Amino acid sequence: MSSASDFVPQPASADIGVYGLGVMGANLARNLARHGHSVAVFNRTPARTERLMDLHGGEGDFVPAVDAAAFVASLRRPRAVIIMVQAGSATEAVIEQLRELLEPGDIIVDAGNTFYEDTERRETSLREQGIHFVGMGVSGGEEGALLGPSIMPGGTDASYERLGPLLESISAHVDGEPCCTHVGPGGAGHFVKMVHNGIEYADMQLIAEAYDLLRGVAGMSVPEIADVFRDWKHSELDSYLIDITTEVLDRVDPATGAPFVDVIVDAAGQKGTGAWTTRTALDLGVAVPAIAEATFARAASSAPAQRAAVRAAGLNAGTTVPHLAAGPERDAFVDAVRQALYGSKIAAYAQGFDEIATASAQHDWNVDLGAMARIWRGGCIIRARFLDDITRAYEADPQLPSLLTAPTFADALRAALPAWRQVVSAAALAGVPAPAFAASLAYVDQLRAQRLPAALIQGQRDFFGSHTYHRVDDPEGVYHVLWAEPGRAEEKWN
Amino acid sequence: MSSASDFVPQPASADIGVYGLGVMGANLARNLARHGHSVAVFNRTPARTERLMDLHGGEGDFVPAVDAAAFVASLRRPRAVIIMVQAGSATEAVIEQLRELLEPGDIIVDAGNTFYEDTERRETSLREQGIHFVGMGVSGGEEGALLGPSIMPGGTDASYERLGPLLESISAHVDGEPCCTHVGPGGAGHFVKMVHNGIEYADMQLIAEAYDLLRGVAGMSVPEIADVFRDWKHSELDSYLIDITTEVLDRVDPATGAPFVDVIVDAAGQKGTGAWTTRTALDLGVAVPAIAEATFARAASSAPAQRAAVRAAGLNAGTTVPHLAAGPERDAFVDAVRQALYGSKIAAYAQGFDEIATASAQHDWNVDLGAMARIWRGGCIIRARFLDDITRAYEADPQLPSLLTAPTFADALRAALPAWRQVVSAAALAGVPAPAFAASLAYVDQLRAQRLPAALIQGQRDFFGSHTYHRVDDPEGVYHVLWAEPGRAEEKWN
Repeated sequence: MSSASDFVPQPASADIGVYGLGVMGANLARNLARHGHSVAVFNRTPARTERLMDLHGGEGDFVPAVDAAAFVASLRRPRAVIIMVQAGSATEAVIEQLRELLEPGDIIVDAGNTFYEDTERRETSLREQGIHFVGMGVSGGEEGALLGPSIMPGGTDASYERLGPLLESISAHVDGEPCCTHVGPGGAGHFVKMVHNGIEYADMQLIAEAYDLLRGVAGMSVPEIADVFRDWKHSELDSYLIDITTEVLDRVDPATGAPFVDVIVDAAGQKGTGAWTTRTALDLGVAVPAIAEATFARAASSAPAQRAAVRAAGLNAGTTVPHLAAGPERDAFVDAVRQALYGSKIAAYAQGFDEIATASAQHDWNVDLGAMARIWRGGCIIRARFLDDITRAYEADPQLPSLLTAPTFADALRAALPAWRQVVSAAALAGVPAPAFAASLAYVDQLRAQRLPAALIQGQRDFFGSHTYHRVDDPEGVYHVLWAEPGRAEEKWN
Repeated sequence: MSSASDFVPQPASADIGVYGLGVMGANLARNLARHGHSVAVFNRTPARTERLMDLHGGEGDFVPAVDAAAFVASLRRPRAVIIMVQAGSATEAVIEQLRELLEPGDIIVDAGNTFYEDTERRETSLREQGIHFVGMGVSGGEEGALLGPSIMPGGTDASYERLGPLLESISAHVDGEPCCTHVGPGGAGHFVKMVHNGIEYADMQLIAEAYDLLRGVAGMSVPEIADVFRDWKHSELDSYLIDITTEVLDRVDPATGAPFVDVIVDAAGQKGTGAWTTRTALDLGVAVPAIAEATFARAASSAPAQRAAVRAAGLNAGTTVPHLAAGPERDAFVDAVRQALYGSKIAAYAQGFDEIATASAQHDWNVDLGAMARIWRGGCIIRARFLDDITRAYEADPQLPSLLTAPTFADALRAALPAWRQVVSAAALAGVPAPAFAASLAYVDQLRAQRLPAALIQGQRDFFGSHTYHRVDDPEGVYHVLWAEPGRAEEKWN
């Protein structure tokens, strides 16, 4: 056991190092130490190292270091260092510093929220030097880091052989299984973490819309709505986000006696991962409308001047639906919203998993989609009972073309769709915005359509830009109509 | 007048050069020559130059060149060269070649569809050498290039002084005004062209949804729907896209006798500008849900295996609405769809203009938004009567916080909203996907909302990630609840 005062050179004995001792890094280090691993710890500002040792040095075997060289020297070979500093230039600087100190076979782990393309770039660059670079998603916030996060490491098989036992020991566990697995090579870990966050955006937006509909259409009070969410814990919606929604809605503001949710300024912040997920889906040609709407909803909420101007323009026309009286009608609506929320949630997760599957195929990552759902069951923000069903769906058919087509979810959608349609209709008529509910429903309706009006769009594109089209009776052929010429003959170009 | 055979050195007399003589480049060159400008023309493969001279050499004063040096030597100073080769590496290579041949004060114009950030990078790099680099959007396709496109040049004021008279002479004209103006410095021209295309995606998707609703909800035949679009030409919807929609729907497939639209494979292609517009909006924090849905709809249509699997899963539940019988009920629905289409179109354009306004402020481009609508009235795909109203709205108030708040459009929205709500409701109930109609309506409803459930999202974010919140009674203060501690006190952090 060491203390902050004896910063002396150590034998190269530490199992792993943590570089960066902000709350997240310190908690990860404590989690490792508490699980019996010897942990080298270092922070550029020594005060943080001292503070960790003073407050928590007794929790396990910490090896504090005064500088990066001593830190690296204290690690057993092949060395493994987890970086937990700010994403961007701070991370870049630490990687460059470690690159000088480490040797072939050593492992650098970036545990921050880094865009996966940056991870891929760094991995390629460090590989030339024989150093394994692992982009690792960590979900669960500060508490998760300490008590058991969901961990999504990318990188080489060799790096996971070294890191896996340590990481699996400190991750959350559900039904005895660790919420950590080797996601795949290269930037696969950070990619999956990004999509996890995009799904989280959609999940939160869907819950917010459900709340808003219960309030704006059903006319329910905040305590009544809190009770509804409490009930939903006993349904397929059971999840951490439903739990904390209940907690937030239960809270009464001590200063005013008003529901706490009414005291909060209604502008949602974002740190960029929802936008990354959407942007990457666009690059991949994957439709993720629920995630996009969730991201846009936060942006729209955070434009106060524009909102005030639009509000003043008096665009309330057509919103004449009266609130529902308490009783059977309202109860039926509450149940319809539950079904709409569940259907929308399935659609949103289908979008996220489609994005992972598409990227995995494109990058040859070979990501096990069922395993992703399994490691999200604990530790992370979207942990939910529902994820078991996703795991089973991919176990039954690893090549599932969409979550929508898994028998469990197809059944669930068939059950939910009639009510879901009613809720989207009611939202439009009442003027309560439900963009993610509507986008999720339209997503299902697009994919299940016999024919899409995309045919008309191809016709327009052929007309104005000679972009050609295929014929249903010759799907491989490439055709063009000579629109500008008399007779407008059809030509086969290929 | 020259011909292909006398490729001899020319005096430096040409007004402007066109490098790259594919159909677009050749047509631009012909357009310039027809307007009395002396045009140097060059193509890496001489056959294209010869073909242009053979077929069209008599249309004006062309100066054909055998190599890039002769091409540059034939231009009067300061030289101006329009590059019209493939975006990406081909454009890059030509720029590097010209960089060696040109002198300070000369102008390189990239008339391709280049992402504006690449344009900004190149402009900065060429500026060091004293060369003006102009990213120029050109809309209108091959026909527009020849007969008068809409032209959106960025770059310096000095470059526009030199180029403006030439470009304005060859652009489309509406009411005697050229569809060309100096958009702003740097990449402003390519940025505006990108958003133009994003709006085009939304406009086309909205028309496609209107068609699909008339067919799927109203149960109308293709010829009946063609007549509806023909009627709409006499409404506020009057536009080139409505015209060509009518033409496509009027067409009967000669081979089968079926409506042409039913013969086209219903998978819409894309060349990336819709995705760029959405991606850039995400970076800027601007909500563009109609453009995003239009882009995603094309992606979803182009996933045949996934669509077949979802179709087979039998998710038709709840779609029990019967078709409307011909007569007053159907007529009312047709009119409601017209209003929904117009309302959605206003919302989609509001999103695009918001994106331009936000980028303009961020980059200090000082883009005249009303002028953008003015130069889109002719030559380009989205040309429409409606754009006059946008120009007037920005003339009346250049600081308009949103198109939705301009008196003309607020009036139009008030008129359209009741029917629009009915149509979005009907689409959801009938299972006819109308993602862009729904997203546009939710966009308006979000911006006009007194309160958004974003407040609940901030509460959730404070709970799981200490992301803090503002209070409505202290909008500047930063607050956090100690959720994990007994008593759950509220702390003021700032």
